[in-house]
Amino acid sequence: MAEAVALGAAMRGRTAPNPNVGCVIVRDGVVAGRGATQPGGRPHAEAVALAEAGERARGATLHTSLEPCAHRSHRGPTCAALIAGAGVARVVAAIEDPDPRTRGEGFAMLRAAGVEVSVGAGAEAARRSMEGFLTRLALGRPYVTLKLALSIDGKIALPSGESKWITGGDARAHVHLARAQADMILVGRGTLLADQPRLDVRLPGLEDRSPRRALLTRGEPVAGWEILRSPEDIFRLHNVNDLLVEGGSGAATAFLSADLVDRILIYRAPIIIGEGRSALGYIGLEAIADAHGRWRSADGRSLGVDRLEVYERVREPAA
Amino acid sequence: MAEAVALGAAMRGRTAPNPNVGCVIVRDGVVAGRGATQPGGRPHAEAVALAEAGERARGATLHTSLEPCAHRSHRGPTCAALIAGAGVARVVAAIEDPDPRTRGEGFAMLRAAGVEVSVGAGAEAARRSMEGFLTRLALGRPYVTLKLALSIDGKIALPSGESKWITGGDARAHVHLARAQADMILVGRGTLLADQPRLDVRLPGLEDRSPRRALLTRGEPVAGWEILRSPEDIFRLHNVNDLLVEGGSGAATAFLSADLVDRILIYRAPIIIGEGRSALGYIGLEAIADAHGRWRSADGRSLGVDRLEVYERVREPAA
Repeated sequence: MAEAVALGAAMRGRTAPNPNVGCVIVRDGVVAGRGATQPGGRPHAEAVALAEAGERARGATLHTSLEPCAHRSHRGPTCAALIAGAGVARVVAAIEDPDPRTRGEGFAMLRAAGVEVSVGAGAEAARRSMEGFLTRLALGRPYVTLKLALSIDGKIALPSGESKWITGGDARAHVHLARAQADMILVGRGTLLADQPRLDVRLPGLEDRSPRRALLTRGEPVAGWEILRSPEDIFRLHNVNDLLVEGGSGAATAFLSADLVDRILIYRAPIIIGEGRSALGYIGLEAIADAHGRWRSADGRSLGVDRLEVYERVREPAA
Repeated sequence: MAEAVALGAAMRGRTAPNPNVGCVIVRDGVVAGRGATQPGGRPHAEAVALAEAGERARGATLHTSLEPCAHRSHRGPTCAALIAGAGVARVVAAIEDPDPRTRGEGFAMLRAAGVEVSVGAGAEAARRSMEGFLTRLALGRPYVTLKLALSIDGKIALPSGESKWITGGDARAHVHLARAQADMILVGRGTLLADQPRLDVRLPGLEDRSPRRALLTRGEPVAGWEILRSPEDIFRLHNVNDLLVEGGSGAATAFLSADLVDRILIYRAPIIIGEGRSALGYIGLEAIADAHGRWRSADGRSLGVDRLEVYERVREPAA
């Protein structure tokens, strides 16, 4: 299951509105087929893996990070039907598909066709790999990641606005990875104006596709950029599982004020700036006590001389 | 040697102006005596260990983190003479004593008395354990540690000044350890006024002795506080190997501007403050490029939900 989840995770940011599923078919202890949801959402992971396995799928075990789909589409048969038709003996799925058109129906179809089904293996990792899709299904908006490149003392620029470069090459390369896992990238107008030359061309890490780019502004539209008037407009976005908010300070502050950030990536450089521009403005905080318990440190690692700090929003399990 | 260094390290902040040395005497593979420099600087580590070993020192090996002293004092005989007199067969020392009254003379006295001497084992760890003493000898001022308790976004307080509490209990307990390793603690007048009730009493972690407390101010003296008019006044301090700058923003900024900080302890809470008071003001930086290469990340660890980040000043080996 770990490999299935990893195959799906690698497609994050490219399958919306579909989930980025991974699938591995094993027969007699040997891998017979591997698959992941393809760019744009089709074919599904199970179909890719079944095509590779061919006749070897008969009597095999199919591991998938999400319940096989049960909803018909003009784009192809259901995965549940494909799996049963291929003679697969057993399906091991990490989690149920929350899509109301499938939600348990895929498992029911498989069982009705005589396929053994078990659910729950690797559920936590699978959920994490598809948190964009799952957030969209649960909350009606993308999973939002905020990226900030900061000094030790939390500055993003000198008073003059000079900000190149706070972090080094390894950290900037990692930002490209974060971009590649997002369906859409958002900046504020100030960042667009400051970085126009760079943002006008294809973003590094996304050269092989047309990234969707959004601009948070109350002003005039800009060609090539989808316009969001406020952070709440993300509830109206189509086909976006994962949104990366790249900055600057205004956009970051607006999303935090609206409590619409799920994860923060801090690229922390070992430098002291002192007087300079702060990363964030007023986010509605009135007492230090209210700031606690909202974020948990989820990961930390060195990137050259810099350090990546990952914080995740702690939310009640209501969602 | 590791144990000798550890014994000495535990006395950091209590032996100035003397070095915090550790010593272990081993005979036939068994520890015969242990010692560390005592509070105030006497007796020396070797004398303590020899007293414990007694007759078992004869023919033994003595491990010490610093060259045994060779300069006579009215407070007792030289350690080199004590060691030779006790019949120790071999001395293993981590580093030479840079004190001009000893500098190699201790080793020479031992060799002249027929004691075998080797130097260099555990030198790096020994240097680190005594960097306060070594900095004072090399630069004529204490080793300066700056402590800052910060949010993710580098704030130390709300706009109102409210700063209690950014970090949690584990981080605050660790601050007490940092205080215990300092001979003197320094704050600015703003912090003194804000925290008067707390700072008036004995500082946590230092209940068992009278901590030396310094105030950085151009204003009126305050009873019980030694006055520094500027960071450069640390060159005039007596009997201070290690100085801890506790804050606030003005004192921290002044010491960084003067390039008189050797180590920064960041206690980082997983909270976002947004608009608020920055940790630092103008430190003389005119270009981002000039900020790089001055600090290196030396350590990092979790303290409850908070994280300690340790940065050390990168200096040319001129000193």
